[in-house]
Amino acid sequence: MPKKIRLGILGGGGDSLIGVLHRVASFINDNYEIVGAVFNPNFEENVNFAKEIDVPTNRIYKDFDTLVEEEMKLPPEERIQVCSILTPNFLHFPMAKKLLENGFHVICEKPMTTTYEEAKILQDTLTKAGTVFAVTHTYTGYPMVRQMREMIKEGVLGKIHKVDARYYQGWINEIIHDKEKRSTVWRLDPKKAGISSCMGDIGVHAFNMIEFTTGLQVKSLLCDFNYLYDDNQMDVDGTVLIRMDEHVKGIIRASQVATGEENGLAIAIYGEKGAFRWEQEKPNFLYRLSDTEPVQIYKPGHAYNSKLSLDGTKLPPGHPEGIFDAMANIYLGVARAIRGEEYNDGEFPTMLDGVRGLNFIENTVASHKQGNVWVEMD
Amino acid sequence: MPKKIRLGILGGGGDSLIGVLHRVASFINDNYEIVGAVFNPNFEENVNFAKEIDVPTNRIYKDFDTLVEEEMKLPPEERIQVCSILTPNFLHFPMAKKLLENGFHVICEKPMTTTYEEAKILQDTLTKAGTVFAVTHTYTGYPMVRQMREMIKEGVLGKIHKVDARYYQGWINEIIHDKEKRSTVWRLDPKKAGISSCMGDIGVHAFNMIEFTTGLQVKSLLCDFNYLYDDNQMDVDGTVLIRMDEHVKGIIRASQVATGEENGLAIAIYGEKGAFRWEQEKPNFLYRLSDTEPVQIYKPGHAYNSKLSLDGTKLPPGHPEGIFDAMANIYLGVARAIRGEEYNDGEFPTMLDGVRGLNFIENTVASHKQGNVWVEMD
Amino acid sequence: MPKKIRLGILGGGGDSLIGVLHRVASFINDNYEIVGAVFNPNFEENVNFAKEIDVPTNRIYKDFDTLVEEEMKLPPEERIQVCSILTPNFLHFPMAKKLLENGFHVICEKPMTTTYEEAKILQDTLTKAGTVFAVTHTYTGYPMVRQMREMIKEGVLGKIHKVDARYYQGWINEIIHDKEKRSTVWRLDPKKAGISSCMGDIGVHAFNMIEFTTGLQVKSLLCDFNYLYDDNQMDVDGTVLIRMDEHVKGIIRASQVATGEENGLAIAIYGEKGAFRWEQEKPNFLYRLSDTEPVQIYKPGHAYNSKLSLDGTKLPPGHPEGIFDAMANIYLGVARAIRGEEYNDGEFPTMLDGVRGLNFIENTVASHKQGNVWVEMD
Amino acid sequence: MPKKIRLGILGGGGDSLIGVLHRVASFINDNYEIVGAVFNPNFEENVNFAKEIDVPTNRIYKDFDTLVEEEMKLPPEERIQVCSILTPNFLHFPMAKKLLENGFHVICEKPMTTTYEEAKILQDTLTKAGTVFAVTHTYTGYPMVRQMREMIKEGVLGKIHKVDARYYQGWINEIIHDKEKRSTVWRLDPKKAGISSCMGDIGVHAFNMIEFTTGLQVKSLLCDFNYLYDDNQMDVDGTVLIRMDEHVKGIIRASQVATGEENGLAIAIYGEKGAFRWEQEKPNFLYRLSDTEPVQIYKPGHAYNSKLSLDGTKLPPGHPEGIFDAMANIYLGVARAIRGEEYNDGEFPTMLDGVRGLNFIENTVASHKQGNVWVEMD
Repeated sequence: MPKKIRLGILGGGGDSLIGVLHRVASFINDNYEIVGAVFNPNFEENVNFAKEIDVPTNRIYKDFDTLVEEEMKLPPEERIQVCSILTPNFLHFPMAKKLLENGFHVICEKPMTTTYEEAKILQDTLTKAGTVFAVTHTYTGYPMVRQMREMIKEGVLGKIHKVDARYYQGWINEIIHDKEKRSTVWRLDPKKAGISSCMGDIGVHAFNMIEFTTGLQVKSLLCDFNYLYDDNQMDVDGTVLIRMDEHVKGIIRASQVATGEENGLAIAIYGEKGAFRWEQEKPNFLYRLSDTEPVQIYKPGHAYNSKLSLDGTKLPPGHPEGIFDAMANIYLGVARAIRGEEYNDGEFPTMLDGVRGLNFIENTVASHKQGNVWVEMD
Repeated sequence: MPKKIRLGILGGGGDSLIGVLHRVASFINDNYEIVGAVFNPNFEENVNFAKEIDVPTNRIYKDFDTLVEEEMKLPPEERIQVCSILTPNFLHFPMAKKLLENGFHVICEKPMTTTYEEAKILQDTLTKAGTVFAVTHTYTGYPMVRQMREMIKEGVLGKIHKVDARYYQGWINEIIHDKEKRSTVWRLDPKKAGISSCMGDIGVHAFNMIEFTTGLQVKSLLCDFNYLYDDNQMDVDGTVLIRMDEHVKGIIRASQVATGEENGLAIAIYGEKGAFRWEQEKPNFLYRLSDTEPVQIYKPGHAYNSKLSLDGTKLPPGHPEGIFDAMANIYLGVARAIRGEEYNDGEFPTMLDGVRGLNFIENTVASHKQGNVWVEMD
Repeated sequence: MPKKIRLGILGGGGDSLIGVLHRVASFINDNYEIVGAVFNPNFEENVNFAKEIDVPTNRIYKDFDTLVEEEMKLPPEERIQVCSILTPNFLHFPMAKKLLENGFHVICEKPMTTTYEEAKILQDTLTKAGTVFAVTHTYTGYPMVRQMREMIKEGVLGKIHKVDARYYQGWINEIIHDKEKRSTVWRLDPKKAGISSCMGDIGVHAFNMIEFTTGLQVKSLLCDFNYLYDDNQMDVDGTVLIRMDEHVKGIIRASQVATGEENGLAIAIYGEKGAFRWEQEKPNFLYRLSDTEPVQIYKPGHAYNSKLSLDGTKLPPGHPEGIFDAMANIYLGVARAIRGEEYNDGEFPTMLDGVRGLNFIENTVASHKQGNVWVEMD
Repeated sequence: MPKKIRLGILGGGGDSLIGVLHRVASFINDNYEIVGAVFNPNFEENVNFAKEIDVPTNRIYKDFDTLVEEEMKLPPEERIQVCSILTPNFLHFPMAKKLLENGFHVICEKPMTTTYEEAKILQDTLTKAGTVFAVTHTYTGYPMVRQMREMIKEGVLGKIHKVDARYYQGWINEIIHDKEKRSTVWRLDPKKAGISSCMGDIGVHAFNMIEFTTGLQVKSLLCDFNYLYDDNQMDVDGTVLIRMDEHVKGIIRASQVATGEENGLAIAIYGEKGAFRWEQEKPNFLYRLSDTEPVQIYKPGHAYNSKLSLDGTKLPPGHPEGIFDAMANIYLGVARAIRGEEYNDGEFPTMLDGVRGLNFIENTVASHKQGNVWVEMD
């Protein structure tokens, strides 16, 4: 195995959940070492956190610009190779852009940018940079999602004619039904949270899951949001009719007021010859349906799975791996790409996933605001 | 227990599945005896079938009009009290109308009529007749569907803000993807099958399930069908956005090309205080969700259930009852109504369910044909 | 279809659950008509009940002996052909014996007799009589249990090496933990309920399910009961180690104090080449396991099922049928046997199932009482 | 947070699965740094592996004795504090003993020793040493297992009267049914693998799960093994009847020939007032049963869970964590104990769990060999 890849972290300090997720994911397959970071805007907290988690403090920087400046002074063989961007959303774009322009690889949390325009700019930047860029649609890292993708690519479903993806959560209920809370929380303030809450935060995962697994692209969409209260300006629920083609249609349902649902991402894909169903909360069970044969349940780690799927499983069948392992699989793919090793398409979500996600979000808002009309995807 | 109710059967002879379902359902609670019938348009087969299933042949008639004519000559205490209409769809309306006009009670298979206009005429006829009329939305007869309805009525979900119903089947795949078959089968011929295949046959069940369980009414809808092929004129798949109110929205998804799905009717209802989820293929498990408490699974026959639910269970908990038992529960409710006994709202689907169903079907077609626009329900 | 079979009913009057189950089951496939009965030891109630359920009262008899006597006076073509015995357990043996001796066919509720000795006598009686005899191990009537049996017979599991059956209920908790109740209820009184409660009532179903599905016989067993209290003399829980052969072993677990369990009969059968798992509370899902292939879920009504399984399904896939339908399948098999039609081994449980069941129950008691030692089955 | 704990690793080099599991688990909560190791008996491979995974090579030792010797020369504040023993089974005892005698804390893979006698010696050693000792019954680290334990301790089940644990795998089928393989594989060679295969490797987990969750101890047992072939001397399947008390009984079922089962550890605990059911392959779903209330499903991360359970969840509800996270929870508990922080009983399995496990294994063998008789636990 080659030497470890030098990783820089932006954000994710203290009790940050996303910070833990990325650190553990980077560790799992022994490919990365954290060599520099700006965990926190407060320099003292930043350094203290580095000490806590045992990252050398000499490359803990006071801010992002300093990190770039100082790292560029180091010889390439010592310099940070890839940065993980875990900061608040509005910082993703400027940070990613500057990193790419300076030749760094980037792992960027979702949403990649706050607008589609920024996303396209970033895409151009990457084209010029020629480095590796990943956006963390974490759920694509699950072994059975990868297995679904590979089997669809092999043609086991025949021509696909219908897709149905759902992402239901209930956590915003306690905020939205409280007049005081809903008018003060940043999540529902368009100035702070961007143009969409539900579709931007979770609907886009369902959208990505469809394009990731089927290899098809959404061509047009019609969206209806629900704000629940007149004094609320952000979608907390929405349904999107989609067309991949004139006769290939689908539905994306997303909600933050689906009471009692936890993290209910699920997908069903129907083709002429068969179908797949998968749910994120039971990630190790992939259902393959047929009109004429018994239902089959695929599980991770079995020799009947594809290489891309098996690659994402560390222990033998029956030892449940979870969301940290899914993210670790994405880090593994990025490591291979950075090292110039062979890797499969699908090992990590790319710039294109990010660009299409932003296009999707803006189009859902446009469709809804124009009165639930059809809008074309680019 | 009072004397058995005198039941007449129209259609359902020979190997008819719907015939078996109604006969067994009428038998289960010992409330009905079949005293007259036109099982079959061929009189000889009609009589032979009566012999086979042990119905006296003296009141097996050559056709529907004769049945009405002859039965009206009998004294009221011998005359058929209620007729079950199991004939081809286009006959439902004229038969039901004539029966009501002659003072008979009616149990009518779905769809109640072929057009909304007929449905409204039938509604008027019933108002004048004042008899008992049921339309067989069979799935409302399941004990856990009834339990859901009762608990919602009691307010356990608080204000409802989202509904999501699905009815997915895959059986039409083997027809639709075969050019020859799809152009010849009566199911896909608008002249024979009416204006809608998927929404008319199964989507309407999902629609009814929403109104039955929530007690709310759909106010407007927007629908998108999928015909899959240019030479096919009937919907085999469709999605409907619905509004019960400005801020109470929902989705109805129906498909006959959801490959590998068998009879996948399912419903989820989300309110401020909780949610319910139920699936027809596992009818004896009702999931109650909450944002803050463990999920609860309600099952039939337990003392914690409502009277309406318990009434529909014959054996102790853990002895699975099924679709025949659900239909039997509807027959039980009708029997009580005919006898003038006390019965609960919800024991059987009524004329109003039928009327609204037709309104729904025509509106989905209108919405789709006009380019996926919002259409108001009456 | 030939004329209906003339059925007599013994017991099962009034609100009897077992009465409803048998009447509905006999009706479902249009094979039987009830022509005579002793529903109730009280003649007036007996006649009233007959009126309620619309059975002609002229052949409602004051007691069992009268029924036999009077029916024997009738010409064979009018006489009751088969009697269903639904009376208290201690009456099963004398009634069945007398019926067989007089040439009647018999459908006998479980337990067939109260002792193994009686069971063997009855077996001899049947041999002489040459009529049809069925004991109602109802669960063998489920389509997926039959499918399991057929596939095992075809060899899909290879050589079987392990079986594991369970029947867990919790209903006796409310009695057993109450000193007053447990000393008064007839169920726990050996004088009234026979030698075993848990194993005799439900463990024997698990035992039968093993022999029914595998086609193998239990050769020896070792049993440990739990009485829970020193002042209780009846088993309310027990585990049985079984050997079908020196190297083919298994376990039967039964409990009436498995708190919260409803009617938890389940079976798993493991062979060299595969395995099956099935649970009574989800009767329409049969799991087929393999060490190297995805799990398969078999469901009723599909063309991939065996004839014996398909025969027990009335509606298309996805329309759940239940326990009444399972019992109806047994009545269907008995009807074929009575008519001398071709029928498959396995369509109904036979005298041999009854005899082995009693042998099993007595052996579990013997094993436990002798200090959990191995006891040989006959 | 205090400084990281200095961890030494024995074994687990190269592609070792157990090595990955422990390294990731030690990393997850930022409590440990690996400072020394003997990953591999071959010194060159040992050093190379250290380089690969970025452990400084200056404290990579040529063998275990050298590690102890050299580390003891270091000042306490630099010395390895705790060693994880991941070597072949027969080395666990001597290594653990020497480590304890030298004042190290120990995390020991299962089985703790190869005999009960060794286990007791080790227990004495620990008593004298007064350090922290953990044995990795990994499954006790799952949040819902901990939740079960805490709720039982609080009394939600009332008095427990029945337990039922199962550990079914099928992987040995491909070996056992092949005459050549079964006579050569080390797993089935008593000289290499110890006295028990199935019970020693997995049955003991089921045993531990019972004692861990209930807080009760098994007092006596009766065991029946299955060897499947006359020329095989190791148990590949076995059932154990257990008594926690005269009227508190249970069953432990273990198999390596349960075809198609992957890692099927499951437990059910029945008490007067309720029951729990849990399965390892769906670790985030804990079922709570009652005779009178709906079934409840507990899931990780909710505020309704106990502190001990919540402590073992990093992300919000609905983000599945798995086996690596379970092991990480055990490492977290050990870290607290080493630091002298407050920690809950149950945060990691202790010497007592190890001792009782060995006692259990030897007793199952004794019971079987003596002809399936009752044997007393110490």
